[in-house]
Amino acid sequence: MLEQLKKEVLDANLELVKRGLVLYTWGNASAIDRESGLVVIKPSGVDYDVMRAEDMVVVDLDGNIVEGKLRPSSDTPTHLELYKAFKEVGGIVHTHSTWAVGWAQACQPIPCYGTTQADYFYGEVPCTRPLTEEETNTAYEKNTGLVIKEAFEGKNPIYVPGVLCANHGPFAWGKNAADAVYHAVVLEETAKMSAVTRIVNPQAKPAPQYVVDKHFLRKHGKNAYYGQGR
Amino acid sequence: MLEQLKKEVLDANLELVKRGLVLYTWGNASAIDRESGLVVIKPSGVDYDVMRAEDMVVVDLDGNIVEGKLRPSSDTPTHLELYKAFKEVGGIVHTHSTWAVGWAQACQPIPCYGTTQADYFYGEVPCTRPLTEEETNTAYEKNTGLVIKEAFEGKNPIYVPGVLCANHGPFAWGKNAADAVYHAVVLEETAKMSAVTRIVNPQAKPAPQYVVDKHFLRKHGKNAYYGQGR
Amino acid sequence: MLEQLKKEVLDANLELVKRGLVLYTWGNASAIDRESGLVVIKPSGVDYDVMRAEDMVVVDLDGNIVEGKLRPSSDTPTHLELYKAFKEVGGIVHTHSTWAVGWAQACQPIPCYGTTQADYFYGEVPCTRPLTEEETNTAYEKNTGLVIKEAFEGKNPIYVPGVLCANHGPFAWGKNAADAVYHAVVLEETAKMSAVTRIVNPQAKPAPQYVVDKHFLRKHGKNAYYGQGR
Amino acid sequence: MLEQLKKEVLDANLELVKRGLVLYTWGNASAIDRESGLVVIKPSGVDYDVMRAEDMVVVDLDGNIVEGKLRPSSDTPTHLELYKAFKEVGGIVHTHSTWAVGWAQACQPIPCYGTTQADYFYGEVPCTRPLTEEETNTAYEKNTGLVIKEAFEGKNPIYVPGVLCANHGPFAWGKNAADAVYHAVVLEETAKMSAVTRIVNPQAKPAPQYVVDKHFLRKHGKNAYYGQGR
Repeated sequence: MLEQLKKEVLDANLELVKRGLVLYTWGNASAIDRESGLVVIKPSGVDYDVMRAEDMVVVDLDGNIVEGKLRPSSDTPTHLELYKAFKEVGGIVHTHSTWAVGWAQACQPIPCYGTTQADYFYGEVPCTRPLTEEETNTAYEKNTGLVIKEAFEGKNPIYVPGVLCANHGPFAWGKNAADAVYHAVVLEETAKMSAVTRIVNPQAKPAPQYVVDKHFLRKHGKNAYYGQGR
Repeated sequence: MLEQLKKEVLDANLELVKRGLVLYTWGNASAIDRESGLVVIKPSGVDYDVMRAEDMVVVDLDGNIVEGKLRPSSDTPTHLELYKAFKEVGGIVHTHSTWAVGWAQACQPIPCYGTTQADYFYGEVPCTRPLTEEETNTAYEKNTGLVIKEAFEGKNPIYVPGVLCANHGPFAWGKNAADAVYHAVVLEETAKMSAVTRIVNPQAKPAPQYVVDKHFLRKHGKNAYYGQGR
Repeated sequence: MLEQLKKEVLDANLELVKRGLVLYTWGNASAIDRESGLVVIKPSGVDYDVMRAEDMVVVDLDGNIVEGKLRPSSDTPTHLELYKAFKEVGGIVHTHSTWAVGWAQACQPIPCYGTTQADYFYGEVPCTRPLTEEETNTAYEKNTGLVIKEAFEGKNPIYVPGVLCANHGPFAWGKNAADAVYHAVVLEETAKMSAVTRIVNPQAKPAPQYVVDKHFLRKHGKNAYYGQGR
Repeated sequence: MLEQLKKEVLDANLELVKRGLVLYTWGNASAIDRESGLVVIKPSGVDYDVMRAEDMVVVDLDGNIVEGKLRPSSDTPTHLELYKAFKEVGGIVHTHSTWAVGWAQACQPIPCYGTTQADYFYGEVPCTRPLTEEETNTAYEKNTGLVIKEAFEGKNPIYVPGVLCANHGPFAWGKNAADAVYHAVVLEETAKMSAVTRIVNPQAKPAPQYVVDKHFLRKHGKNAYYGQGR
């Protein structure tokens, strides 16, 4: 079932390796088939170089395995909460990419210092609050999804397609798995650029809001004029 | 028309990828044919690995498309302003290269800390002032060109072949497209070196002016003695 | 003798090169055959690209060469002390990997800022005290092993599979040579991430202990639920 | 003439590229034939990928071209002063490698923070004083050699095989051209590690002198015990 989606999820996982965002078996990508409400996700702890499309695991939104011989990623409950909270999201990626983790470990959002970030993120990349001890000890991965949801109250997740989890690392998403990978790559790059900005000037200020508006909206929404208008 | 120039502009764009200065479709290179006043520029949002010389777009200095089936880069009006302001410039490059963006986001010029920069830039790499809200909302890309022009009042753009746009990223230029790429690569490298200098000593001082004079002028101008005297 | 172990030790040494953890002849990996008490280790100062399994040197726990035409790594006495002190360890790696050395030179432990480290290290990566002048001048390499042992008093070396030697660099270990390499790679990565964290916020705090507990214990020990349960 | 030495100098120059120490035509390597007092050096501003052994230029210690159709490196007078001052040196390398330049631009020596540096440099990597305006304007490259010589008064250049030139970059040397490249690579690596140390702790202290003694002398001098005792 969902053979095409499995292929897309496999490709997204392999693209994470190719882009240098994962070490060993770290990181995972998933996608959802909104019609059936089924999610296809990477199996847990399997080497990327032997992974095949048929190893992808199909789960429902309650986390029941619908198809697949392997255990799904241990982060599956986080993905599921995000699919439930963010209805327009079709693909999700989690990595421990170096520079984004550096910010997440500092428990700070990435300010929108410039247009590279503003081209894809409509403002800062938020950082979740830390989980409480109880949230950590009970349904940790599910609660990780819930604090992300909490961090996006009043925010449009399609306009801010990624987040830092405090003391952990980034999640990114998009309309499908490939789009989620793209945003994970951009997030890692903007995390690096913005660390350089801190080196140059630890007191640097975010870009003016009107610059953020301009850049984000020339690529997104009904007045966009970047690209070939496909 | 301008088939040779299209080839040069394609090559310059591909060289940006090879040198690690661009991610995805970011960045763009152009060149001008000074005789006809026509500019050849990369199309907007097209993947580098499928781009061909015939995809390059030909525009006049007012931004009218003279030849080409695709939309030109959304940054085209910036390139045009620079060609109009800097008469000796034959090629222009814009990137979001990591370290140069790091400085641009800090809204600081790169001081001329040493001879690597002085070999190509006769002093600091300037940073433009931020655009005003009105400049941003009205003809943003054209105004980006105009604030660069403003930052070069009293400066020779041939002697300082690049700039940082505040909260944005670098533009670089040269006598042709390949030369502009070369300067974009040097700018990225000096941005990295100079960030390291800030790590080592946040209060580091620029090199003495006489050192800058010496290095720049041993490679440029009528008394140059570097290279094979071609 | 121990031909299979020699092959494993060679592979571990070559993997260090492939992972970018060593320059030239720097670094070394070893493994122990617990039954015979014999240790197989890389020869000293031999180029990685000509190294063969039969070049590996076999020594006993007193440092006597049991087999091999070449001198063993000059760090052999450190490895031997660790095998004597840490009975569950089967493989050891020493490198001068860039970011881990950066921390070791600062004579600071790497705080457990986040889950990447907590997935493999149950808390901070300790840094040894500096050796005294006498310890340095008498049996330096053996004493390096002894100060590591000292730094692990009250700690489980299987739960913290690596250390920084002050003003020197990292050692890492595991159940075999490949596992030791894995931990050396993770240590280098977490050293890099955590330096980025210091750039972002020099006053960053370690992750809460309950987060460290959660992440370490979901991968290790009897209640682990990461991976395929092999 | 000196065909073998030309081959060695070519190889050394190409190794600089392979090791990532040079961009474009930057950097140069040379070697001296002590018997004849002739120096073989890279030509100025020639692309590395078309450079052949026969393009190497032979000069005497007064800078006269003895053989070669191309101009020698513009840094030749610096190399010559170093060969005259440091009688045991057989090869010299100059680069603008990123991290070493970062330190040179900060006009600071690289403290001997640890054993990686101490394995090759018997203490800190010195930084020259800046040249005066007169020294810069008259025989700049020769005076660059003379301030290096000045920085080594009372120091053994064989024990400290490299230097930072203030606001400029590193020179490294050794018993031959390949050895000089090796030291240039080590210098770049220790410059990077030590910048990381500054990130981790801006107030980090150098390693104790007895550690430096131990590491340097276990690899160098009559009591060395590292390697295979060739």
